[in-house]
Amino acid sequence: MTELRGPVRIVGTGLIGTSIGLALARLGVVVELVDADPDNALMAERIGAGSRLVQLEPQLVVVAVPPDHVGAVVAEQLKQTDAIVTDAASVKSKPLAEARTLSSAEDLTRYVGSHPMAGSERNGPLAGRADLFDGATWAVTPHETSDPDAVELVRRLAEAAGARTVELSVEDHDLAVARVSHLPQLMSSLAAGTLVDAPAAHLELSGQGVRDVTRIAASDPGLWTQIVSANSPALSGLLEGIRDELDRLLIALGKEEAADEVTAVLNRGVSGAVRVPGKHGAPHIELVAVLVTIPDRPGQLARLFNDAAASGANVEDLRIDHSPGRPVGEVELDVKPDSVDQLVRVLTERGWAVHR
Amino acid sequence: MTELRGPVRIVGTGLIGTSIGLALARLGVVVELVDADPDNALMAERIGAGSRLVQLEPQLVVVAVPPDHVGAVVAEQLKQTDAIVTDAASVKSKPLAEARTLSSAEDLTRYVGSHPMAGSERNGPLAGRADLFDGATWAVTPHETSDPDAVELVRRLAEAAGARTVELSVEDHDLAVARVSHLPQLMSSLAAGTLVDAPAAHLELSGQGVRDVTRIAASDPGLWTQIVSANSPALSGLLEGIRDELDRLLIALGKEEAADEVTAVLNRGVSGAVRVPGKHGAPHIELVAVLVTIPDRPGQLARLFNDAAASGANVEDLRIDHSPGRPVGEVELDVKPDSVDQLVRVLTERGWAVHR
Repeated sequence: MTELRGPVRIVGTGLIGTSIGLALARLGVVVELVDADPDNALMAERIGAGSRLVQLEPQLVVVAVPPDHVGAVVAEQLKQTDAIVTDAASVKSKPLAEARTLSSAEDLTRYVGSHPMAGSERNGPLAGRADLFDGATWAVTPHETSDPDAVELVRRLAEAAGARTVELSVEDHDLAVARVSHLPQLMSSLAAGTLVDAPAAHLELSGQGVRDVTRIAASDPGLWTQIVSANSPALSGLLEGIRDELDRLLIALGKEEAADEVTAVLNRGVSGAVRVPGKHGAPHIELVAVLVTIPDRPGQLARLFNDAAASGANVEDLRIDHSPGRPVGEVELDVKPDSVDQLVRVLTERGWAVHR
Repeated sequence: MTELRGPVRIVGTGLIGTSIGLALARLGVVVELVDADPDNALMAERIGAGSRLVQLEPQLVVVAVPPDHVGAVVAEQLKQTDAIVTDAASVKSKPLAEARTLSSAEDLTRYVGSHPMAGSERNGPLAGRADLFDGATWAVTPHETSDPDAVELVRRLAEAAGARTVELSVEDHDLAVARVSHLPQLMSSLAAGTLVDAPAAHLELSGQGVRDVTRIAASDPGLWTQIVSANSPALSGLLEGIRDELDRLLIALGKEEAADEVTAVLNRGVSGAVRVPGKHGAPHIELVAVLVTIPDRPGQLARLFNDAAASGANVEDLRIDHSPGRPVGEVELDVKPDSVDQLVRVLTERGWAVHR
């Protein structure tokens, strides 16, 4: 069996690298911290993610540098050490191609890509958390010549960090993240972009829909430029599909009767939306929404959740509707169908305005 | 002064019509209920939204029928009565054009469009609620020849229902909703559509971003086909802009260095996203996210919100991160900057794992 013994060298002590260090340090694994910016490595060391000075040769190197540099740093680490090398980049084809160009075929057997799927809106070592990966998905993406022991060691790393591993080929992984992450990001950015020149009065008509669709458009453009550029082959195919659908839609909208094409786009959207896994992973769990009107002042949510808990219902998801200017808020509690009646009864008894 | 005295005739007793009836009935205004489907009108009457038999001539008629029929019904009511006539459709140019074709110029002065911006995922009279419009935005859209007294009466209606009115020209309104509602809907549907043929393993990599972007893609295609088709002039211009940006993006992604065009799209997205009003309307309020890890079992949210309330912080928004398979959940509490320190201190003291 391939055990994760350490030391583990982490190259790049941003959010991801530092969080991996913190997760391993809590298990007693020796972690070496390396960063091109000495202040970053120092900060990561100070919060307990590892040490900047480790004399022993690493068993495993984790490359967690910005996307544009991953391939080169992987190749460098393969050359400098005899360790297994993995990386944490969110696109896998490009770093593999770069590492392949820069490394010997023999060295490349020690490389296995991986992608821990957790993040935060905050960056840098001080945002690092030992529990960032608890229960998160961590894709492990071996290439054709990856050594099976190396693959196993990278799995152990992910599990040590608390994650659930999913093994995918490099190509499959990149198409998957293009679909479930990079394309939604671009669609959100394009939709939000139409609001730049809108008169303020137009924005007053905003509701929850536009808020949801444009939320991730506020993400860091520097990081996302690197991700989108790195995954352009997988993304281009999907974007061409969208462009072609837009062309058909535009032709239809110019005619007297646009209905068929519009309905086709909307129906396809429904079929896709219901496939997105819910709270506890696929399959999609049927939840029922219970709407409760609440006064917008401190303590009301606490009172509501006390009363919901008293009914025995587990709130699986919730949303606050915060339409501009409403003096009261509306909270949507999503619960399993068999909890609904009891929840509605208890909340109503306790004086809440409840709607199903 | 133009007072809303009633009777008010409501034509179309679905969610919106019934809710208007319930809101007026609570003020003692006489409401007449009319629906092509007698069962619908009967249900609306039974829950107290008004009466199917009112002998008096209406002062105001509210047309709340499906989008495709609004223009014809407005014209019919202008002809049958001497009342002021408004409608509740979410697109204003098309019903106005239809009513203009079917009505005399004199009758048309009694018509003023309006758009109550509230809804629910549920339809039909039984989903009706007297408080549906409390604090909601209600656009009032006079045309060139609308009588000022008629405009005033429609404002009174909106205020009587508890809404906040915004006056916009018909053209401005339709461009505004194309931007903040119809375009986001189509972008969400197009993004979700790419998931239809995805292997299940790809969907396992879904995170909160794709869930947010695709949420409204699950909306009713029948209703949205009517809305999108009715607003095709305003939407086409925006969709052409998106299509052109996609074309530029695809050309850039095919080249060695895509960065500039990608960054331009992402930067524009950031500028647009920050313009979307937050909870209490424009301007966008700065909120700080405090992340709390919680065990996924009943009562934990109640405990968390009790503890948050004890800190004196008002939770302005919140989100549950429900990544597939995580045994613990993460709740994001959004609070004003001056509440953060106290909130973090109190939650930490009470044993919560808190991250900023």
